[in-house]
Amino acid sequence: MGEFELIRRFFAAASCAQAGGEVALGIGDDCALLTLPAGEQLAVSTDTLVAGVHFPDPCDPSLLAQRALGVTASDLAAMGATAIGFTLALTLPQAGADWLAAFAGGLNQAAERHGLRLIGGDTTRGPLSLTLTVFGRVPAGAALRRSGARPGDLLCVGGSLGDAAAALPLVLGQQQLPAALAEPLLARYWQPQPQLALGQALRRLASAALDISDGLLADAGHIAASSGVALCIEQARVPLSPALQLLPREQVLRGALSGGDDYRLLFTLPPEHLAELQAQWPELAVLGRVEVGCGEVRLLAEDGRELPQPVGGYQHFGQDRD
Amino acid sequence: MGEFELIRRFFAAASCAQAGGEVALGIGDDCALLTLPAGEQLAVSTDTLVAGVHFPDPCDPSLLAQRALGVTASDLAAMGATAIGFTLALTLPQAGADWLAAFAGGLNQAAERHGLRLIGGDTTRGPLSLTLTVFGRVPAGAALRRSGARPGDLLCVGGSLGDAAAALPLVLGQQQLPAALAEPLLARYWQPQPQLALGQALRRLASAALDISDGLLADAGHIAASSGVALCIEQARVPLSPALQLLPREQVLRGALSGGDDYRLLFTLPPEHLAELQAQWPELAVLGRVEVGCGEVRLLAEDGRELPQPVGGYQHFGQDRD
Repeated sequence: MGEFELIRRFFAAASCAQAGGEVALGIGDDCALLTLPAGEQLAVSTDTLVAGVHFPDPCDPSLLAQRALGVTASDLAAMGATAIGFTLALTLPQAGADWLAAFAGGLNQAAERHGLRLIGGDTTRGPLSLTLTVFGRVPAGAALRRSGARPGDLLCVGGSLGDAAAALPLVLGQQQLPAALAEPLLARYWQPQPQLALGQALRRLASAALDISDGLLADAGHIAASSGVALCIEQARVPLSPALQLLPREQVLRGALSGGDDYRLLFTLPPEHLAELQAQWPELAVLGRVEVGCGEVRLLAEDGRELPQPVGGYQHFGQDRD
Repeated sequence: MGEFELIRRFFAAASCAQAGGEVALGIGDDCALLTLPAGEQLAVSTDTLVAGVHFPDPCDPSLLAQRALGVTASDLAAMGATAIGFTLALTLPQAGADWLAAFAGGLNQAAERHGLRLIGGDTTRGPLSLTLTVFGRVPAGAALRRSGARPGDLLCVGGSLGDAAAALPLVLGQQQLPAALAEPLLARYWQPQPQLALGQALRRLASAALDISDGLLADAGHIAASSGVALCIEQARVPLSPALQLLPREQVLRGALSGGDDYRLLFTLPPEHLAELQAQWPELAVLGRVEVGCGEVRLLAEDGRELPQPVGGYQHFGQDRD
């Protein structure tokens, strides 16, 4: 059996993990075919992960697959979309059966968890990289956008921040921590959990949303710019997970403010919807508020004083990540 | 201006080349949004092209972009889909302004020619490669499949074969030809023309179809296997372009039978539709017929004798192309 045939067999499980639904035709012809329910739109997003730029090489292939699918599916969450499926373009220098089995296992596990079915792809030889394109559906006109934030709205985040940034020195082998401390951090890095259900709930409540991939301050800037407002973030309200409480506070805070890879939803919310949402999503936190402005993001101390923002101090994995 | 900002500006033209239509939201948010007309399905296909495997490196960036989009859009033609848009995941080691301008120029030109709008993408640093995902629409249930060929149908091809194979030694710098001879061949390699209009016309006529990317015999095998039939190809009926008539006949024939990259549609057709189709598409050729069988492809001489098929004799660009 050729190795590309081997790859197809390994990936067959993910292509069948979710039955029927919007996938009228999956892998095996020139195109996949998707059917949308009446009144729904298709949401599409593409992400590429390159070895040595977006992940260390070598790394655990199962974790790589889980990270790649989680990262890409997070864009569906950010639009409030319901997951349908994905294509995988996998380029790899050679394909050992062990590597492929582990990769396919991780991919299938993440696909099932996120409700995504593998509908097509391409496998090519070359330097290791992955491009995933994800598909979701959303009622026409109801997708969450970055551009709807209005002065008076609250600025909220879907959960704690900074874990993935704290994991990065561990991922890079620059730091060692006891397993009990390291494991939850590494899980946040390698197995990001796109907040798909929260995104769907936000469709009729939030005024703007995105997922935090580049860091809280940078991504808040995207909402502020798209909406033509200012966002004020109270530093003391940035939620940190218990896993971070044993690490140096300055490092933790910098990671939570400027570190990427958390894949929490950041959104703006008319205040009257807060109680309803918190009842169902107790882990969400109010970070601050939307004010009149032109794309500014302000970081505030508890006394309302504006704080300097960490600039360029945070090490992404790879200098030129984009 | 950062180079990734530069890239975004260069690509802006392709994202606006086609107005509105099915693209409800293009580049700039977490996802693009597509709207489908009632009763239509979305067709999706992904292709990756890696430097040194699928194209020589260095090469003309404008031609590279045109080839990448043509190759990928050909999968839409093979399903009979109408083009909507595409995403581009571009990984490149560095981004000189000249390279980017030329690449974007070629991309925009091909996007306009094929009716495709750039709706999203990702730009990353790494070894040069491109992954394109194309989107089209097709009336529900009307997509051309590989599996519908029936004994008694004719086997047809959308135009001449072998030009791209004959171009390969030129592309690789292994052969030199006078410009008048080389140029039409190189154009077929670098600027493949997906047969989108023919594919749409075939939706109500053909019983099975695909596009020839791996070579006539190999791709005929896919229709034969999917449909559970035998395909008989009369070697003398394989159409060769005038550009090939000055080259050695054995090389030309081998390229036409086993060389990839032609991106002509190969399809099976109930005989009663031939006259109608030929009136509109005079360049199409009947290659043979569909017979009872189990996935075989037979190559026949004019006297009906079965001919040996060229095996492994054709050099794809890169050994492990898939």
